[in-house]
Amino acid sequence: MKTNKNELEAIFPQDEKGSDQYFTGNSYNYTLVDVDSVFTTAIGNVYFEPGARSNWHSHPAGQILIITDGIGYHQIEGQPIEIIKKGDVVKCPPNVRHWHGASPDVGLQQLYIVPNTEKGIVVWQEAVTNEQYRK
Amino acid sequence: MKTNKNELEAIFPQDEKGSDQYFTGNSYNYTLVDVDSVFTTAIGNVYFEPGARSNWHSHPAGQILIITDGIGYHQIEGQPIEIIKKGDVVKCPPNVRHWHGASPDVGLQQLYIVPNTEKGIVVWQEAVTNEQYRK
Repeated sequence: MKTNKNELEAIFPQDEKGSDQYFTGNSYNYTLVDVDSVFTTAIGNVYFEPGARSNWHSHPAGQILIITDGIGYHQIEGQPIEIIKKGDVVKCPPNVRHWHGASPDVGLQQLYIVPNTEKGIVVWQEAVTNEQYRK
Repeated sequence: MKTNKNELEAIFPQDEKGSDQYFTGNSYNYTLVDVDSVFTTAIGNVYFEPGARSNWHSHPAGQILIITDGIGYHQIEGQPIEIIKKGDVVKCPPNVRHWHGASPDVGLQQLYIVPNTEKGIVVWQEAVTNEQYRK
């Protein structure tokens, strides 16, 4: 099934458009697992159109990303941007600032897993500037 | 990328063949996130060939499955078999017996997420009989 603009493999629908308050460009969230007290885990899929990315943010219990298609960027503050692509897994430790999104020319399909949500889910911060994104 | 026998979409390689002690038929695990004390979450992918399935088992903190391709079965003890397919998410609560695997004719690609691994990961039990599988 190749349904979206970049002919990426779409496993999940594009549901809720990411708010301009937290994302630059067009991104679409699809919630897979709502937070509850049994699994204490938030899971969903985000499709980032080319050039789209999250703001800087952190997670009180950290975050795991699983890339299912496309090419994107992940940056932990103070480290170089990592190129992420289909099949990759990246982790961001608790309370560490990071951002993630698509590459300029190819979109990104990524699952996110936020464990131990009893500690909190996400703390949103400022946008990633064009200069930071193009490094 | 359509690389395996059923022309399913393979995001991850087939790594470690599931032990005959815990699986019927051919299944292949690929570990994505090893257990640690930071994320306390075990994540991996299992490809089940047609007809392959796990034994009955339970998880002290429960399990979440995300189906990325193919068609399979999931059964929680005492409930009917559920058909699971690409895009589906199923949960098994803590300490509840279940099994999962491929349908007889089409394989299954599934991610598993085991949260709160400090409580334990998996308790393996007896094989799913052909009679149970064919219900």
